[in-house]
Amino acid sequence: MKIIDLRSDTVTVPSEEMRAAMARAKVGDDVYGEDSTVNELEQVAADLLGKEATLFVASGTMANQIALLVHTERGNEVIVDAESHIYYYEVGAAAMLGGVQLKPLEGLLSSEGPEVLRKAFRPPDIHFPITRLVCLENTFNRGGGTVISPAISKAIYDLAKERELTVHLDGARIFNAALALGCDVRDFTRFCDSVMFSLSKGLGAPVGSLLAGSQQFIKKARRYRKALGGGWRQAGVLAAAGLVALKNIPHLAEDHTNARYLAEGLAEIPGLQVDLSKVETNIVVAKVVGRWTAAEFAKELARQGVKCNAWGPDTVRFVTHKDVSREDIETVLSIVKKILSL
Amino acid sequence: MKIIDLRSDTVTVPSEEMRAAMARAKVGDDVYGEDSTVNELEQVAADLLGKEATLFVASGTMANQIALLVHTERGNEVIVDAESHIYYYEVGAAAMLGGVQLKPLEGLLSSEGPEVLRKAFRPPDIHFPITRLVCLENTFNRGGGTVISPAISKAIYDLAKERELTVHLDGARIFNAALALGCDVRDFTRFCDSVMFSLSKGLGAPVGSLLAGSQQFIKKARRYRKALGGGWRQAGVLAAAGLVALKNIPHLAEDHTNARYLAEGLAEIPGLQVDLSKVETNIVVAKVVGRWTAAEFAKELARQGVKCNAWGPDTVRFVTHKDVSREDIETVLSIVKKILSL
Amino acid sequence: MKIIDLRSDTVTVPSEEMRAAMARAKVGDDVYGEDSTVNELEQVAADLLGKEATLFVASGTMANQIALLVHTERGNEVIVDAESHIYYYEVGAAAMLGGVQLKPLEGLLSSEGPEVLRKAFRPPDIHFPITRLVCLENTFNRGGGTVISPAISKAIYDLAKERELTVHLDGARIFNAALALGCDVRDFTRFCDSVMFSLSKGLGAPVGSLLAGSQQFIKKARRYRKALGGGWRQAGVLAAAGLVALKNIPHLAEDHTNARYLAEGLAEIPGLQVDLSKVETNIVVAKVVGRWTAAEFAKELARQGVKCNAWGPDTVRFVTHKDVSREDIETVLSIVKKILSL
Amino acid sequence: MKIIDLRSDTVTVPSEEMRAAMARAKVGDDVYGEDSTVNELEQVAADLLGKEATLFVASGTMANQIALLVHTERGNEVIVDAESHIYYYEVGAAAMLGGVQLKPLEGLLSSEGPEVLRKAFRPPDIHFPITRLVCLENTFNRGGGTVISPAISKAIYDLAKERELTVHLDGARIFNAALALGCDVRDFTRFCDSVMFSLSKGLGAPVGSLLAGSQQFIKKARRYRKALGGGWRQAGVLAAAGLVALKNIPHLAEDHTNARYLAEGLAEIPGLQVDLSKVETNIVVAKVVGRWTAAEFAKELARQGVKCNAWGPDTVRFVTHKDVSREDIETVLSIVKKILSL
Repeated sequence: MKIIDLRSDTVTVPSEEMRAAMARAKVGDDVYGEDSTVNELEQVAADLLGKEATLFVASGTMANQIALLVHTERGNEVIVDAESHIYYYEVGAAAMLGGVQLKPLEGLLSSEGPEVLRKAFRPPDIHFPITRLVCLENTFNRGGGTVISPAISKAIYDLAKERELTVHLDGARIFNAALALGCDVRDFTRFCDSVMFSLSKGLGAPVGSLLAGSQQFIKKARRYRKALGGGWRQAGVLAAAGLVALKNIPHLAEDHTNARYLAEGLAEIPGLQVDLSKVETNIVVAKVVGRWTAAEFAKELARQGVKCNAWGPDTVRFVTHKDVSREDIETVLSIVKKILSL
Repeated sequence: MKIIDLRSDTVTVPSEEMRAAMARAKVGDDVYGEDSTVNELEQVAADLLGKEATLFVASGTMANQIALLVHTERGNEVIVDAESHIYYYEVGAAAMLGGVQLKPLEGLLSSEGPEVLRKAFRPPDIHFPITRLVCLENTFNRGGGTVISPAISKAIYDLAKERELTVHLDGARIFNAALALGCDVRDFTRFCDSVMFSLSKGLGAPVGSLLAGSQQFIKKARRYRKALGGGWRQAGVLAAAGLVALKNIPHLAEDHTNARYLAEGLAEIPGLQVDLSKVETNIVVAKVVGRWTAAEFAKELARQGVKCNAWGPDTVRFVTHKDVSREDIETVLSIVKKILSL
Repeated sequence: MKIIDLRSDTVTVPSEEMRAAMARAKVGDDVYGEDSTVNELEQVAADLLGKEATLFVASGTMANQIALLVHTERGNEVIVDAESHIYYYEVGAAAMLGGVQLKPLEGLLSSEGPEVLRKAFRPPDIHFPITRLVCLENTFNRGGGTVISPAISKAIYDLAKERELTVHLDGARIFNAALALGCDVRDFTRFCDSVMFSLSKGLGAPVGSLLAGSQQFIKKARRYRKALGGGWRQAGVLAAAGLVALKNIPHLAEDHTNARYLAEGLAEIPGLQVDLSKVETNIVVAKVVGRWTAAEFAKELARQGVKCNAWGPDTVRFVTHKDVSREDIETVLSIVKKILSL
Repeated sequence: MKIIDLRSDTVTVPSEEMRAAMARAKVGDDVYGEDSTVNELEQVAADLLGKEATLFVASGTMANQIALLVHTERGNEVIVDAESHIYYYEVGAAAMLGGVQLKPLEGLLSSEGPEVLRKAFRPPDIHFPITRLVCLENTFNRGGGTVISPAISKAIYDLAKERELTVHLDGARIFNAALALGCDVRDFTRFCDSVMFSLSKGLGAPVGSLLAGSQQFIKKARRYRKALGGGWRQAGVLAAAGLVALKNIPHLAEDHTNARYLAEGLAEIPGLQVDLSKVETNIVVAKVVGRWTAAEFAKELARQGVKCNAWGPDTVRFVTHKDVSREDIETVLSIVKKILSL
């Protein structure tokens, strides 16, 4: 049985082109700053994002946590969305590694975001931690892969700057956001002080994310990466795959088309509800309304070769990516129909 | 002009009886465990709360933070109410000192608390911090001094125990809660693993809170107190005042009567709104509905000798206590009327 | 049996004058900055030390740890003596609370200190933590109460400043140092950016230490004190005792005389060795050279009414203070003689 | 000019065989535990070390820091050698990430190690952090690549166990140690609770280290790895190189021969001193006794194509590895002679 894996775009495997690039990559010791392929990737990514410098790290979580460490002092407060990756999926690292308190707000990553943020500000008081940072996430994973528009990003950024706060953008899937709106990625990155994106999600590289910001920011980030144990040696073998991955950016559009196709198909199946207005990129969240729990439904799907994530008590998430074809989506739809008609 | 200070019951000053007790207190070096007055206070408090042991500390915040440190490991998650003192007023200490992530829930400290808690549980997953602790607060300060009933406390405690979580009770004003319901303080403390209460709020002692729990818990707490710099020497002078303060417990009822009187008076004044159903103890929250912001209104009150706290953009908080008489309340009401009729 | 307690000068109990001052102290809520007696103590202490401002805290450990928190960022390195209080006796708090690594040097608090410090400096390197702070201790407790001269203090301070490091002085017993050299305490405090001293050691107050530095430093210190749970309310009752304690400074000279007398007496007793050249203030360290271990010897002394601390496997420490008279010292000597002649 | 890089064995570049293995590696998502090549490497390494399980991580520093996190609670004390990698080269991470205080001992990693350790133990006391862990390092990098014998390892391990302490072995170069003594690596690993070794040093893999211990230990380690941002996706491409690297173990013997040859050659050159008794593996430390500082000497060598590390004010370190041949060593010796005869 062929497995169709829609749990996440992190499951993408490296292409032949990437493998060939890895095999012939020029490498050096990246702790000494001497891996020319890493250096090339960091330069290319900086240009792409419109930032002064970038740092190649092992994961999106590492990039986010380093950003938090550089932007804050212990005891600070960091404003995040209540469903953001940093709050929800990063093992409590912000508190453990950085000693910072997250302040999760409902609706920050919505069209109401600026108003939500404005209401959350507190006046200076010795009882309150000092707020230092606001974190955005684009696309917004737990929002269903939704895009935070440049206008909303700017409004939040401007509010933050009024308060002398810095802004970090968890842009793990920022290229999906840019493609969805048909804009340049810099239309988002200009409204943040630092940004990270992942090579190992839809772009298909095996390992790695890039953290971007000012020269000064990246200099400090490099030291924190070392402290976290993220200083790697001949990482050029991974960077080579990353350079190929950047060429995949335009192909993310196919994932969006496939997600749309999947969403529309699922929406028509009795027993599922899909909010099509939220299917903007490569993520589809469906509500299981019948007698199945999300966990049971996901388990039955897996038994029949379709993997997805139980996302909440009654929701499942499907993520399209380069290793899933239109034909696979059709297979998924027919399997879902079969299960729900039982 | 006489100042009537309703900002908090922390402003209470020690009585003559307390001062006399302090002046004659037998003392020793409490770091060595040799201050007999401290030891007596710790024993009396343990008996009162129905716990094995207690520790005398400098503040309620210190007691809460020590409890968090003992109950958790770095990287754990702690469930709190989104308006709880631990999350709102403790300077981000949980993250800074303990490396723990707070998970603030709206409505935990309400009659819906058990359901709110149940929905917040997440299944084990490598992306999630391990949840270790649930914190209650009774009375609930930012709730307006409301009482969490023993039944709700028990329901939350039982849910926590199903998940092998510990429960800490921030009982800074737990005696107010007991008086409000006419029950024993142990009707609350039996539904927690540790509890703290303050001597320096309504009870009128100058300094100090007591943290209570099992012998093993207090042994660990003592070490953390030392690390926080809370190991004090001849603290018996403060403990002597604390022993007198415990005799004040029944007198908290007068603060409740005064708060009720104040609330009903304020509710009748145009320009203010008071939810009388929430005035259960010694705290009154009023909404300023006219042309004043809360900050402006508080400032004008202060100019006329009445201190209160701006509590939100359009709310002010008044706290009654032993140093405020019925007559003072009447003065407050007439001043408020005068201001709002301008 | 009368107990003569030479374990530490922390065991001193408040005098009648202090108790009277406590009983009549004017107080207010120190978290709001409104306790006039605390404010007076903080001002008097600042003037005494020649610093802009001070903060009244619950212990010397709290003062030291707050200083570390203000002067450093997480991940920094702090240079201390290998026998310093901060490294030896503060429960690992520097790492736990502040995330800073202590770098203990042997001999920093000696006449070789500047050379020891110079050799410890490392060039910038991504593998090394950033060094931010050097801590002095004067008198040097585990050194035997020895005094670090102003000249040595200056040499270390100058070296630190060449490297843009700050200097904190743990001056728990700084007035003993000044008395020993017959100089002003400012001859030491001018060679540090922050300094703390204890009211509850030789000066006899029940509780409290003062942390001093610039206005900006103390502002940050106040926030960290709150986060540690050190924000106390009507602390004026303790500050009143502290103000009396400051009048005791000249009387520390008697403790020095008594220590000298004790040291010379002990030095003549077979079975003990005392390095008289190190008895500069109120601390006497004696080596037990006979068949007793230090722990056994201390235990036997205690059985006969004399308390001291086993200080190492074969050393004991005696500390003289205001509650020990010349006559008591004579009693101690005769008891020691009796024990060792067995 | 050909560059001969003797700064570290971390500079080794992947062989053609490794590159081929990377290009054809079977991969999956390692965060889900589904990368079969990673799983194979972890199993092979566990068998090699005689431990229940291993975890593949990005660096030796990450492995060491995860071990510290698993073995300790915040506020604990960890005993290390004063020249150990964990204390000297890991950016203060133990304090920053784990809140633990390192206790650096001189001579722990020497034949006197057990005695040094025994003397360092302190009795329980509320002023002292709780000691939880002893860290060994084998070979001992700053000791000059020296080997801690199984007998010494056992003696330290036994002492630790008497105190209920755990033992972690930083075995970045443990295979060098085993080859030097002609023994099995398990002769060392049986005297520790956890051990890490590096694939990216002498063994020549581009990236990665393995952390080994009990199943329970590795389960906790996996969660901490995620929190540090060390959870990577298709890491099988690196693991494939790691599996090839393990075949290189016997070839480390050539590095030892080359180091010996280099050391003996350097020892005969006026202006350098080499303690030949300490040249046990692939590291050579030479003292520069003439008019050059170590930094100047290293700079001049680099100018002539030979890279080494200035190791201290007057010492330089050379590390031999697979990318340096006997002929290269001869070139190095002639360049050194030329420089020092100037």
